Amino acid sequence: MANPGGTERTKLNRISYKASHEVSDLYSVLDSNLVAHVALVQDGKPLVIPMAYGRVDDIIYLHGSSGSRLMRLLQNEPDVCVSITDLTALKVARSTFNSGMHYRSVVIFGRASLVSDEKKDEALNALSDAMIPGRVAEVRASTKKELAATVIVSLPLDECSVKISVNEVDDDEGDLNQGTWAGIVPFVTTIGEPIPADDEAAGLEVPASVRNLAKRP
Amino acid sequence: MANPGGTERTKLNRISYKASHEVSDLYSVLDSNLVAHVALVQDGKPLVIPMAYGRVDDIIYLHGSSGSRLMRLLQNEPDVCVSITDLTALKVARSTFNSGMHYRSVVIFGRASLVSDEKKDEALNALSDAMIPGRVAEVRASTKKELAATVIVSLPLDECSVKISVNEVDDDEGDLNQGTWAGIVPFVTTIGEPIPADDEAAGLEVPASVRNLAKRP
Repeated sequence: MANPGGTERTKLNRISYKASHEVSDLYSVLDSNLVAHVALVQDGKPLVIPMAYGRVDDIIYLHGSSGSRLMRLLQNEPDVCVSITDLTALKVARSTFNSGMHYRSVVIFGRASLVSDEKKDEALNALSDAMIPGRVAEVRASTKKELAATVIVSLPLDECSVKISVNEVDDDEGDLNQGTWAGIVPFVTTIGEPIPADDEAAGLEVPASVRNLAKRP
Repeated sequence: MANPGGTERTKLNRISYKASHEVSDLYSVLDSNLVAHVALVQDGKPLVIPMAYGRVDDIIYLHGSSGSRLMRLLQNEPDVCVSITDLTALKVARSTFNSGMHYRSVVIFGRASLVSDEKKDEALNALSDAMIPGRVAEVRASTKKELAATVIVSLPLDECSVKISVNEVDDDEGDLNQGTWAGIVPFVTTIGEPIPADDEAAGLEVPASVRNLAKRP
């Protein structure tokens, strides 16, 4: 069960005011992003790779080609650490020391589990719909060959932390009234106009799944 | 020296058309992003944490509080793997299998090096100016106390890979003319209107460093 910050290694000691223990915050960060950075240990050394992911209830799915080095590592069910980060603003203070960032981030610890062949189709559909809600109903089913070429692993949200940094600029008193500007510079990510793939697509209406991406949290 | 894709573990074997060996691409990805996912091995298990970074020539700097667990790990100069990823679009094909993402990503392997006390001020300024070009000249110098509270490590770009995925939708022939839309859905990140920290800041002009952030590549 998802329990943000509930274990020793997910507890924030130093800046505990940034920790969230709310499952709703955990879901919000996971459901508004698309790329996870997945770390594992290979030959005793760290490896971290960006991957698409999708949350379904209290797990996240990661998928890739059965031919990829990374998926061969993941299907051996290693310990992994996964980080998802949303940079929302720069905090520009009157000193470099007090400057920083606004962000929302999740770190998940656990062991990857290989999704069995029997459950692969269901998991792949769930992952696809987590990424582009409603898309699965708009396209044909996956073929046996496609499923065979795909590896999916799941990771439970049992051990995770959520960090939300939104604090105001907090300058030293001595830095005030020296003529230096300070403030928050927000980053805004939006969905641009969809670009049809070809003449056929240009003649078709943009589907609901794609239109609704603009409403993602 | 930066040499993208020049070693065994940075060579892309399977999807080699996505690999870039151009130093200009490496710099472009590093200079247009602000957050790196930094992975290391702790007690035999992977750990990955988002961190602000800045590139200066052929190294990146990472910094944090001397009180943080992560910086205590990094100042011991462990092997690290660092990934920086820019999601630029969703590739929405006529099947889930052929769908994917457009992205630009860098993965760096190496060993963190602790920046000595003598070089910390210079490194911190270089890091700050890499993140917000020109900001250092607009604020006061760091104090001795601030420098003492900060740990900076550097990582050379000697071993890295650059992956750029911008390929068009490539559907199976049998999926065409079935009435299914396909295309590219771009993500656009912009800088919002700066929000002054307080009354004093509201009365001052937004400085050049902040205004120029909108021109970042």
